Amino acid sequence: MRDVSIVGIGQTPVGEHWEKPLRILGMEAVRAALSDAGIERPEALYVGNMLSGQLSRQENVGALLADHAGLRGVEAIKVEAACGSGGAALRLAYLAVAGGSADIVMACGVEKMTEAPSAEITRALATAADAEYEADQGLSFVALNALLMRRYMHEYGYRKEDFWGFALNAHANAVNNPYAMFRRPLSQKALAEAKAIVEPVSLLDSSPVADGAAAVVLAPTEFARRHNLPAVRILGSAAATDAVALHDRRDPLVMSAVEVSVQRALAQAKVGVEDIDFVELHDAFSIMAALSLEASGFAPRGQGVRLAMEGEITLQGRIPICTMGGLKARGHPVGATGIYQAVEAALQLRGAAGANQLPGCRLGMIQNIGGSGAFAVTHVLERAF
Amino acid sequence: MRDVSIVGIGQTPVGEHWEKPLRILGMEAVRAALSDAGIERPEALYVGNMLSGQLSRQENVGALLADHAGLRGVEAIKVEAACGSGGAALRLAYLAVAGGSADIVMACGVEKMTEAPSAEITRALATAADAEYEADQGLSFVALNALLMRRYMHEYGYRKEDFWGFALNAHANAVNNPYAMFRRPLSQKALAEAKAIVEPVSLLDSSPVADGAAAVVLAPTEFARRHNLPAVRILGSAAATDAVALHDRRDPLVMSAVEVSVQRALAQAKVGVEDIDFVELHDAFSIMAALSLEASGFAPRGQGVRLAMEGEITLQGRIPICTMGGLKARGHPVGATGIYQAVEAALQLRGAAGANQLPGCRLGMIQNIGGSGAFAVTHVLERAF
Repeated sequence: MRDVSIVGIGQTPVGEHWEKPLRILGMEAVRAALSDAGIERPEALYVGNMLSGQLSRQENVGALLADHAGLRGVEAIKVEAACGSGGAALRLAYLAVAGGSADIVMACGVEKMTEAPSAEITRALATAADAEYEADQGLSFVALNALLMRRYMHEYGYRKEDFWGFALNAHANAVNNPYAMFRRPLSQKALAEAKAIVEPVSLLDSSPVADGAAAVVLAPTEFARRHNLPAVRILGSAAATDAVALHDRRDPLVMSAVEVSVQRALAQAKVGVEDIDFVELHDAFSIMAALSLEASGFAPRGQGVRLAMEGEITLQGRIPICTMGGLKARGHPVGATGIYQAVEAALQLRGAAGANQLPGCRLGMIQNIGGSGAFAVTHVLERAF
Repeated sequence: MRDVSIVGIGQTPVGEHWEKPLRILGMEAVRAALSDAGIERPEALYVGNMLSGQLSRQENVGALLADHAGLRGVEAIKVEAACGSGGAALRLAYLAVAGGSADIVMACGVEKMTEAPSAEITRALATAADAEYEADQGLSFVALNALLMRRYMHEYGYRKEDFWGFALNAHANAVNNPYAMFRRPLSQKALAEAKAIVEPVSLLDSSPVADGAAAVVLAPTEFARRHNLPAVRILGSAAATDAVALHDRRDPLVMSAVEVSVQRALAQAKVGVEDIDFVELHDAFSIMAALSLEASGFAPRGQGVRLAMEGEITLQGRIPICTMGGLKARGHPVGATGIYQAVEAALQLRGAAGANQLPGCRLGMIQNIGGSGAFAVTHVLERAF
């Protein structure tokens, strides 16, 4: 397989885009990434999206985005793995270039959520869970995360405030990200007063519903070298699954899809978890951040939350996470999130992350999760030249 | 890229499966294909599906099917390109094996439609069209095809009965397909009396709403040889797009996505259109069959319908199509259709098509279309050994 790099990146601000339909959001990200790469036209476009059919009554968004981005004719396909859709699109784009079937392939993630009534959004997000055994029993997606958080607190003896470091870090990092939804720091007071959504998950444990689109252009690393493009190599790429329903897992607090995808991606990259300089992880809820740090190997079981308590996840810490705000503060337009992560990691590895730049970072990991852990996709990225 | 073959096939009967949820339909097809190939576990599973979010309130069906088919842990991703979702899943599975990232990859197509109220099904199918400029203006998916058929009749001077040959052929072929929904021949009388859905499209110009699932196992052809598996080689594979909205096309009667995907697939296969022995084509409506025969190069412009009038599309004709009943009579569980086509073409090329066997056939084409031509994916298949 060929060596593949990210050679172009683009993103729209994350937020409420009532003035822009799905196709325009996607178009803006695709055009921005092509312009960044100085490339006219890709051979294929894979679009990560979860909710267009339910919330915008629009399927076939692969063809729709290709057309509206001025790329009529190219191969274009929508890819869905719940909130992991963007990462899944990135993986399929990577496979196409690595395998040699195409030289220039794009992955775009797009989601438009905020125009729908909130009951409809809640119902739509619950389709990431098991429809028959979870959602139909009245469990919303927040409720599933509340069950996980309660169990974690019970098993390991943590309090709600032990999780606050995740939101504090995310908001602190979003301040300097012009594309982030919430560009303001959080106070301990705000965290203490945050309303419960489903006990023990508070509003500030939860990432926001949002609209947004992001895109990347992939090419053989050799192509990037020849054309003098700023290349971020994809050293490892892997996806894995677990049971969709929480009650079907061997242990609900062990995210085995994350474990497997990380181990495979690291093995392909020929690096160890200790070599990773930062992680764009899937902090849809603070409990998700804790569990994925553990399953990825950055903390032992039951200790993921300690990294937040001890400041190890900040830009100055041992393993910085969510360096541009993460799902919590950049915002979580679900099917787009995995591509935002790729764009943000590319900014870090290009040395273009502005005030949030991690000095001398060389290896980044991005991880996108679908459902409460049913799908996970992990990529290891490296500054190429 | 490596030479890839279909080494296992599986399908459920197409019809109304009110007793079986989506996950069970998918599981049955996946298990049947694995069992046919004598393989325990694939490395990845790509699932073509269009409507699970809208009609079954279930997304993340990649992970869901992997889990329920006993494959927990494998990479599994849903792929959507409207009614072309199955063909898109086949293409991505092909790319994964051809590129060398995995040896055994499955593509499954699954759709469950018939339990929903028919107004909801009509609304869901219209999400294959342009939501803002077609569906929101009141155009159903049948209405779009009616516009195309009316224009075709006007431009070239055909009558409604000139299209009857498509349905007659499909139903005649379905009689011998134990998995088909409508295993009965049609009479001229039935066609003459068929109710109009949207003038000039009658009930018998239209493929039926249906439930069903089909799956294929792909592997390197070399693997098939070593393990003595009945291999059907994928000689060519290509996908392309066009405008989603009919009014955005240069010419609504020219399916340019079909044209491009056929030309690329034939070029990759190094064969000409005249070498193709049969086609499993996307006869969602009889006008679609006519237009795709033309865009594929089997008939000049305005002459596609003549192939049906002159009996050239039957098993005894010059270019047999829909040899096991096609979308019209086997049934059209939308996201599954592209994989049913692959299974049926594999049966022909293995010499296992029973009473419908085309003697000595060597090259088959399968073609799956999303929307009214916005997405098209074409594969050229060959009997390997």
